Amino acid sequence: MRTIIGVMGSGRMLSAQAERTAEHLGRLIAENGWALLTGGRAAGVMDACSRGAAHAGGLVVGVLPDEDPSCASRWVDIPICTGMGDARNAVNALSSRVVVALPGGAGTLSEVALALKAGRAVIALGWDPGDAMRAAGGALLRSAETPEEAVALIVEELAE
Amino acid sequence: MRTIIGVMGSGRMLSAQAERTAEHLGRLIAENGWALLTGGRAAGVMDACSRGAAHAGGLVVGVLPDEDPSCASRWVDIPICTGMGDARNAVNALSSRVVVALPGGAGTLSEVALALKAGRAVIALGWDPGDAMRAAGGALLRSAETPEEAVALIVEELAE
Amino acid sequence: MRTIIGVMGSGRMLSAQAERTAEHLGRLIAENGWALLTGGRAAGVMDACSRGAAHAGGLVVGVLPDEDPSCASRWVDIPICTGMGDARNAVNALSSRVVVALPGGAGTLSEVALALKAGRAVIALGWDPGDAMRAAGGALLRSAETPEEAVALIVEELAE
Amino acid sequence: MRTIIGVMGSGRMLSAQAERTAEHLGRLIAENGWALLTGGRAAGVMDACSRGAAHAGGLVVGVLPDEDPSCASRWVDIPICTGMGDARNAVNALSSRVVVALPGGAGTLSEVALALKAGRAVIALGWDPGDAMRAAGGALLRSAETPEEAVALIVEELAE
Repeated sequence: MRTIIGVMGSGRMLSAQAERTAEHLGRLIAENGWALLTGGRAAGVMDACSRGAAHAGGLVVGVLPDEDPSCASRWVDIPICTGMGDARNAVNALSSRVVVALPGGAGTLSEVALALKAGRAVIALGWDPGDAMRAAGGALLRSAETPEEAVALIVEELAE
Repeated sequence: MRTIIGVMGSGRMLSAQAERTAEHLGRLIAENGWALLTGGRAAGVMDACSRGAAHAGGLVVGVLPDEDPSCASRWVDIPICTGMGDARNAVNALSSRVVVALPGGAGTLSEVALALKAGRAVIALGWDPGDAMRAAGGALLRSAETPEEAVALIVEELAE
Repeated sequence: MRTIIGVMGSGRMLSAQAERTAEHLGRLIAENGWALLTGGRAAGVMDACSRGAAHAGGLVVGVLPDEDPSCASRWVDIPICTGMGDARNAVNALSSRVVVALPGGAGTLSEVALALKAGRAVIALGWDPGDAMRAAGGALLRSAETPEEAVALIVEELAE
Repeated sequence: MRTIIGVMGSGRMLSAQAERTAEHLGRLIAENGWALLTGGRAAGVMDACSRGAAHAGGLVVGVLPDEDPSCASRWVDIPICTGMGDARNAVNALSSRVVVALPGGAGTLSEVALALKAGRAVIALGWDPGDAMRAAGGALLRSAETPEEAVALIVEELAE
């Protein structure tokens, strides 16, 4: 069974810097032999991170909100079509052994919260999900400043 | 069609003060002629708020995580059994015309985030969901200090 | 807690006869004091049965596939917006104490199957769901020729 | 993007013959370069078909009803944890480019119905889903007697 690392984050147009971070994180995930799981759409963090993983030869799973894969990022290998809109965010959270959350909006925050609710470790990369989320997450919610730091934390989590 | 107001919040044992607040909010919702929607379980805010609404003659809808209604609060009139665990939080958010969020943990935060993602107005009653959530919510996310203030904001939202 | 009877069936234009049957069934459900649950849309069996129940003063719950209630039948009192398309068929099945299935297409068949899978009693009214479904359902799947017969079977089920 | 073929069928103990059929079908799916998707559990058709695909070097996706992968077949590479019980049957249907249905019970019938509802081609292998299902499915629902025939029909579908 493959170890699946979920990466969540903004579905909007990214800054050049955010794009590089997401892509680099995807590359590192693939290089570590983990499968990447994202929300699957051809936008924002989902697309950039999937591209990074694909370029490094990784396997990319996209859990889509739609009923068919036409909206999927071209870097997705395995499109899971849920047809359930943002209720699929719960599937993203549950299917990830560890979640890395890049800056995002309400969708990303819902995925962080659902992952914590389900007892999944969450790593906030480059942002602060806020006092309330940190109180809710306790030791499950950690922070990283760089993709490399995030990967080091994933390694720690997987060793437990 | 009935106007449905969702109330989210902790599913754990409440302080006496939190219990009173939730119950009073339920009562006010019923007195205004709105149907109350909660996560339906016999615990925390769900139970207390439902009791308040039921005592005031209101209609209480409980959207349960389970496959059968055995875990439902006794104050629920209409148990909706989803069998989908916390993925049902998306249903809570979408089915509510306005969401009032009392203090809670990761589940509550996920409901706030999913409601904002779906364009629903959210009123945080007596707590602060954090900078990230406020940034994600913009004008959709407002604050109240008392159940009466929350109800006044609901009235404003419904008038739009 | 209200007893909820689910009615499933075609979402397409009905014959005059099918329309009368669905409406009459809704009326009988309301007259027995049960809440009616349907898929909620303004079409076919959902609409006709809801109208019958509403005219008899009953409470109508509509579990919608959409993210907002704009597609709901005007006879729905409580719109539950799932945003999850036909995955909501599982919610229809689980939330019904007994399911009455009128003739329908693939959606109706999925609801019959999901109800049987969840151990809910299903009454096929005026049609035959086929050998495979009858084998899968065993004693849970019964047949009726008229709304009155269906109601008699519901009463039997509720007495168990 | 990988082509995903869904295989549905009984989750109970299989006869030796049914076991061989499911395993052989899995092997053929892998040999054709398609990814296999099943309901993921360590039982019945899900397990046997996944084993066949895995032995032939194929990629196996398991869409699980549970919140964690502990119930997954050991032959699953990519466990998708939905936590939504049989509502995940809709995900199985939507995520499959073509569905092959082996004999099964109510769960399998729900997957056939949901796939047809979503416009997916379904191949019933070695059984008859019944008149009602055939009427609902029309040209989308076809029959095969052997795994080789099923694969030939998949090839036809993919060519369209």
